[in-house]
Amino acid sequence: MQGQSQQQAYDRGITIFSPDGRLYQVEYAREAVKRGTASVGIRAEDGVVLAADKRARSPLMEPESVEKLHKADDHVGVASAGHVADARQLIDFARRQAQVNRLRYGEPVGIETLTKSITDHIQQYTQVGGARPFGVALIVGGIENGEPHLFETDPSGTPYEWQALSIGSDRSDLREYLEETYEEGLTTDEAVGLALDTLARSNDGELSPEGVGVATITVDDPEYAERPTDEIEAVLEERDLLPADEDEADGESDGE
Amino acid sequence: MQGQSQQQAYDRGITIFSPDGRLYQVEYAREAVKRGTASVGIRAEDGVVLAADKRARSPLMEPESVEKLHKADDHVGVASAGHVADARQLIDFARRQAQVNRLRYGEPVGIETLTKSITDHIQQYTQVGGARPFGVALIVGGIENGEPHLFETDPSGTPYEWQALSIGSDRSDLREYLEETYEEGLTTDEAVGLALDTLARSNDGELSPEGVGVATITVDDPEYAERPTDEIEAVLEERDLLPADEDEADGESDGE
Amino acid sequence: MQGQSQQQAYDRGITIFSPDGRLYQVEYAREAVKRGTASVGIRAEDGVVLAADKRARSPLMEPESVEKLHKADDHVGVASAGHVADARQLIDFARRQAQVNRLRYGEPVGIETLTKSITDHIQQYTQVGGARPFGVALIVGGIENGEPHLFETDPSGTPYEWQALSIGSDRSDLREYLEETYEEGLTTDEAVGLALDTLARSNDGELSPEGVGVATITVDDPEYAERPTDEIEAVLEERDLLPADEDEADGESDGE
Amino acid sequence: MQGQSQQQAYDRGITIFSPDGRLYQVEYAREAVKRGTASVGIRAEDGVVLAADKRARSPLMEPESVEKLHKADDHVGVASAGHVADARQLIDFARRQAQVNRLRYGEPVGIETLTKSITDHIQQYTQVGGARPFGVALIVGGIENGEPHLFETDPSGTPYEWQALSIGSDRSDLREYLEETYEEGLTTDEAVGLALDTLARSNDGELSPEGVGVATITVDDPEYAERPTDEIEAVLEERDLLPADEDEADGESDGE
Amino acid sequence: MQGQSQQQAYDRGITIFSPDGRLYQVEYAREAVKRGTASVGIRAEDGVVLAADKRARSPLMEPESVEKLHKADDHVGVASAGHVADARQLIDFARRQAQVNRLRYGEPVGIETLTKSITDHIQQYTQVGGARPFGVALIVGGIENGEPHLFETDPSGTPYEWQALSIGSDRSDLREYLEETYEEGLTTDEAVGLALDTLARSNDGELSPEGVGVATITVDDPEYAERPTDEIEAVLEERDLLPADEDEADGESDGE
Amino acid sequence: MQGQSQQQAYDRGITIFSPDGRLYQVEYAREAVKRGTASVGIRAEDGVVLAADKRARSPLMEPESVEKLHKADDHVGVASAGHVADARQLIDFARRQAQVNRLRYGEPVGIETLTKSITDHIQQYTQVGGARPFGVALIVGGIENGEPHLFETDPSGTPYEWQALSIGSDRSDLREYLEETYEEGLTTDEAVGLALDTLARSNDGELSPEGVGVATITVDDPEYAERPTDEIEAVLEERDLLPADEDEADGESDGE
Amino acid sequence: MQGQSQQQAYDRGITIFSPDGRLYQVEYAREAVKRGTASVGIRAEDGVVLAADKRARSPLMEPESVEKLHKADDHVGVASAGHVADARQLIDFARRQAQVNRLRYGEPVGIETLTKSITDHIQQYTQVGGARPFGVALIVGGIENGEPHLFETDPSGTPYEWQALSIGSDRSDLREYLEETYEEGLTTDEAVGLALDTLARSNDGELSPEGVGVATITVDDPEYAERPTDEIEAVLEERDLLPADEDEADGESDGE
Repeated sequence: MQGQSQQQAYDRGITIFSPDGRLYQVEYAREAVKRGTASVGIRAEDGVVLAADKRARSPLMEPESVEKLHKADDHVGVASAGHVADARQLIDFARRQAQVNRLRYGEPVGIETLTKSITDHIQQYTQVGGARPFGVALIVGGIENGEPHLFETDPSGTPYEWQALSIGSDRSDLREYLEETYEEGLTTDEAVGLALDTLARSNDGELSPEGVGVATITVDDPEYAERPTDEIEAVLEERDLLPADEDEADGESDGE
Repeated sequence: MQGQSQQQAYDRGITIFSPDGRLYQVEYAREAVKRGTASVGIRAEDGVVLAADKRARSPLMEPESVEKLHKADDHVGVASAGHVADARQLIDFARRQAQVNRLRYGEPVGIETLTKSITDHIQQYTQVGGARPFGVALIVGGIENGEPHLFETDPSGTPYEWQALSIGSDRSDLREYLEETYEEGLTTDEAVGLALDTLARSNDGELSPEGVGVATITVDDPEYAERPTDEIEAVLEERDLLPADEDEADGESDGE
Repeated sequence: MQGQSQQQAYDRGITIFSPDGRLYQVEYAREAVKRGTASVGIRAEDGVVLAADKRARSPLMEPESVEKLHKADDHVGVASAGHVADARQLIDFARRQAQVNRLRYGEPVGIETLTKSITDHIQQYTQVGGARPFGVALIVGGIENGEPHLFETDPSGTPYEWQALSIGSDRSDLREYLEETYEEGLTTDEAVGLALDTLARSNDGELSPEGVGVATITVDDPEYAERPTDEIEAVLEERDLLPADEDEADGESDGE
Repeated sequence: MQGQSQQQAYDRGITIFSPDGRLYQVEYAREAVKRGTASVGIRAEDGVVLAADKRARSPLMEPESVEKLHKADDHVGVASAGHVADARQLIDFARRQAQVNRLRYGEPVGIETLTKSITDHIQQYTQVGGARPFGVALIVGGIENGEPHLFETDPSGTPYEWQALSIGSDRSDLREYLEETYEEGLTTDEAVGLALDTLARSNDGELSPEGVGVATITVDDPEYAERPTDEIEAVLEERDLLPADEDEADGESDGE
Repeated sequence: MQGQSQQQAYDRGITIFSPDGRLYQVEYAREAVKRGTASVGIRAEDGVVLAADKRARSPLMEPESVEKLHKADDHVGVASAGHVADARQLIDFARRQAQVNRLRYGEPVGIETLTKSITDHIQQYTQVGGARPFGVALIVGGIENGEPHLFETDPSGTPYEWQALSIGSDRSDLREYLEETYEEGLTTDEAVGLALDTLARSNDGELSPEGVGVATITVDDPEYAERPTDEIEAVLEERDLLPADEDEADGESDGE
Repeated sequence: MQGQSQQQAYDRGITIFSPDGRLYQVEYAREAVKRGTASVGIRAEDGVVLAADKRARSPLMEPESVEKLHKADDHVGVASAGHVADARQLIDFARRQAQVNRLRYGEPVGIETLTKSITDHIQQYTQVGGARPFGVALIVGGIENGEPHLFETDPSGTPYEWQALSIGSDRSDLREYLEETYEEGLTTDEAVGLALDTLARSNDGELSPEGVGVATITVDDPEYAERPTDEIEAVLEERDLLPADEDEADGESDGE
Repeated sequence: MQGQSQQQAYDRGITIFSPDGRLYQVEYAREAVKRGTASVGIRAEDGVVLAADKRARSPLMEPESVEKLHKADDHVGVASAGHVADARQLIDFARRQAQVNRLRYGEPVGIETLTKSITDHIQQYTQVGGARPFGVALIVGGIENGEPHLFETDPSGTPYEWQALSIGSDRSDLREYLEETYEEGLTTDEAVGLALDTLARSNDGELSPEGVGVATITVDDPEYAERPTDEIEAVLEERDLLPADEDEADGESDGE
């Protein structure tokens, strides 16, 4: 209770530090990310893979309208976890930045450049008052100069590059699994399998083909492409991840 | 009480997250939606149906002045639940967006495009301080490229596409009923019947013809059209939903 | 007391919802309306009637300076209840809107159009911070395309159309009386009588000719006209509503 | 104490209503008016009279520098009670409005028109935050189209027309006296006498010639004119209102 | 304590009235004035005298840098008491106003006109939030059309004209002394003596020549002139106001 | 505790006075000044001397980077105490003012003029909200028209001229010492010695040559000049102020 | 607890001082710096060395994406500790300043000039409300006119020049070590070794080559250059700083 009221003294806004130098509102925004369903990103030898748990809240909801995977530019995709509406704002920002880059320099924006323009935008919402931080994390993946790249943005506005990562619910479990199983030199197709294996772990080991989204961008064909449902179903079947009774696959919702 | 005061520490504004990553003001705005009478949307094979409980507070009030159904553009209708005055602001916004689209691109705005411009507008009111979130949910339905579409907007600014849904009071009951009874391949007329069946469930199984509104937009004739009262009465009679004594049909009011 | 302090947590501003989705400041503004003397509006077959209790606080105050009835345009009148100074702001707004309509479209503004421009203006004061809601309700009556129309605006910014209504003190009593006695097909003169009957009910059954205002706009002569005092006196006498001793007719004041 | 703390919850700003629909800050501003010395206005058959208690705080203070009577335009005078500095702001506003009217329409501003432009200005300070209401009431008197008019403005921004009124300290006593003694058809000179009789009642029945100000505007000569001290002394003597020992006539000060 | 906490509820800002209509922040600013050393103004037959206690805090401080007397224009001087830095802001404002008057009308600004432009400026800081009131009072003295004038401004923004007055510490004592001793028809030189007599009363009856400032503006030579120290010393000696041991004359400091 | 909580009610911002007319935030800013190491200024017959304790926090820190002495213009130097970063803002402001003066009038800015433009700038931060006062005091010294001048600015924005003064830690001790030892007619070199004597008193009577800064501006050569370390060392040795073991001369740090 | 609540009264914003003249929010920002991993800067005879602990949080994270070393201009590097996102804002600011200098003056910006433009920018965030201070410290190192320079910026906005320093976690330990071991006249290569020795002390005496970054700028070749991992590994091996089992080298993370 002491700790509780102590904490409450410093967690009402982003414009104050706590005595130990923490920004509680940014930490709470990270909790908002954890309330969202998981997304996974994997950098393969020849491309990047983005996968997202996009289970619908109801059988009447169109699964494809659950926005977890986004095309930011031809060569860049984004997977999100947390507040869907906040994610949309950042994706719009990213798309405009990508367009501006093409207009100004006549070439596709770099993956790191794009990520950092997003995180610099996010940082503003952690220092200047009158608004709250973004309650969303993003995985930004794409091809730059023939090389696959995979970045993370978090609510503090810090960019990090990863070989493989997960964001959203069950983050530490999934990361641990990735650390154990990820190997350099994976093909994109192998990475798709690993991504689905990982996602399934926050889902009782099962995934319905409609409840999951997978996008890839490869070095050979650097165009953002979402995998069709039947293709996903085939991979899930191959890996024995299909639910026993697929009709029950409506469960936990996204965290907004 | 602990929980109570704990919650109160974080629910006074939209610019702060709670320690578990929630935005209480957005959740309270969802309560404002639940205080409004129910609206229902159903996507049929050949069109979309919007229906709304629009009972008047007094026999002297003109039922048609209870604004629950709105024409956003020729091919798009909107049903609302919650604060009427807030709904009007969003409808005005939607109409301007639709007009701008016609002027700029010479064609009707897409249903998803329109919905997302509304939800992006709503999101701003959940992140930047100085105002409250919109206390209203919308069902946006229309025809795009010959296909019927049905979307939902909520106070967080998240867009979802549905085959059939309800918003406002008794939401979970009505959704459950829709999940049980909705079937793909319904005709628009069958969908009108199902919509009225559903609405009647939040009304003791009865609806007065003046107390309900029904609008349809069909693929063959993509023009927003509100059904005349006598036509509604015929359907209600056919389905045995007319009140025993119609004069008593003034009850619960809209939630503002 | 629990409820009391619970309520106090959410009623200090218009930018926060209470946990059950209410806007207390808007509800309190409705209380401000109830503190004002009553006004009544009735739609007749051939016109609209606006009547208002405008008793002066002192025999030395000029009754005609108690502003309860306002001409918004040639064909539109407004009766108010609540804060007089707030009412004046909205009337000024309405007049400007009516003028703009004439300049832009060369024709008188529609009654519904005008009402909704007022309510949209009111809504802003319920969502954006830095100001309080308007503490006033209006009855907007007029002739549009040869048809009489009667609308209400309340502090939430919701517009409703009525056949007959009252606003201000004793609202539910007067409404009940109107629901019992109002009949479609009344002439304007009959409606004047009914309006005075109704008003008298919040006044111990008596009205002094100087303490009441009556305005009519008829289909045949769509010009806002306030009835002269002697004409009102004649109606009051005919209906036996004159006070036994007229000199005592200074009582309750308007609620500001 | 319950009532006390209850009230304190809603009286810290003009942007919130209390649960019973009151604006406490406006009511407190009315208390500021009552702290000021009294002013009286009387409408005569052939003119208007403004009179004000302007006792100085010290025999070394120049009585004419106690600002209670103000010329707003040739044909309009203003008497104030309450915060002197606030009064000056409103008088300046009134003078500018009167000038603008002459420039725009080539004629003197109407008394009602001028009063309402002042009250509309005052209303803004009761609805929009960031400032306090004006702590002053005004009596606006003048000649319009050959007719004398007398209006009141209060801190809520409500305009009222009176035959005779008082503002400031002892308001209800003085009003009662005016209601008993005022008669229609008074000449301006008779009204001056009545005004001084009334003012003397908040002063132990005595007034020193230097401690009171009287201004008149008559139909025949519609020019604001302050009566000279010797003329006032003559009237006071005639009515037996001179203090027994005039040198002691420094007492209560204005309420700022 | 009840009164204490009662008061604290309303004294945190200038934008709220207390329940009894007071502006506590303005009253507290008056306390800031009282913390400053005294200044005195006297209107003589043929000029005005401003005198100020300007004792230095240390023998190493230059007494002439203690700013209590200011030239606002050739024909206008100002004596201040309270916050020195606040006084400087108002003096700068006064100087600009005086310059503007000369440029616009080609003549020196009137003393009353200048005073009222200062008080109107001060009033703004008592009504609009975001700043505090000025913690300073001024005596504005000068010659206008061959007549000497002496005005006071206080933190509320009220202007008053005086024959003789004091501001700052020991105000009521000094005022009482002035009321007893001031006589009309004094020459400027006699007024200088009276001013020093008065000031000495808040200083144990003694003044050091360096610790006091005297400025005069006479009808014959309407130019602001500060009296040289030796001249002041002569007057002090004549009136037996010199300290027994002049070296001890460093005591109380100005109130900032 | 009573006094404690009493004080806390009024010390949270610069826009409120306490009941006794104090501005606590300005007083707290003065405490910030006292937390800084001492600076001394002395006006000699033929120049001004500025000296500052600029001990480094670590032997690895470059002593010359401890900013206590600043050149504001060729003929003006400034010594500071308190927040170094705040001092830099004011120095920048002073330099711009000095430049503007040269451009506008073609001559060096006066020392008093420059000081007062700084204090007027400081005053703004004590009256208008949204920022804190400057936590720094300055000694401004220079030559104007062949005369040396020495001014002080404090956090309230009050300018004072001194013959000799100290700011920062141990202020009253050092001032007392200066009052005892300062004599008019000192040469600049004698003043350098006195300044170092004074500074040493807040340092256990010892100063290391690197831990102290001395700047002079003389009438004969009105150019700001900082004395080289060896020259300072010579003076310190002559006056027996060198530390017994110079290597230990890292102690107390500047107060930010 | 007394001290605790005492402190809490003044630590909620940068616009208030505590009674003892401290800015708690700036002190808390310094705590945020201490939460970050350590960085070290050393000025050698012929260059400057920047070294940073940049251990990744996971073996899947790319170590080079942990941003602790930044190139600000060809001849200037920056090492940071604390909030990575805040550091990025300041680096961007520094880069723009460096570019502006080149454009305006046609030459590289001075190291001190650049540092001070950064600290002046930081100071604004400690005085004006509506934002929080920067939670980051920087070491700015580079070559100016053939001389190496090393500066520090802290959250208060104070610039200091150092021969050698550390920022971030374990600051006082590392500084103590540097004070004991640093000697003037080191070569850049020797300084690299000392920097790694120092960094290893906050890491149990071990550093993995990938978890540390080293940049140098030398007088002979004033170009910012990061040392390749194999070169770092060689130095670590030579100094026996390599971890026993390098695979375990993921531990403590950066402090955001």
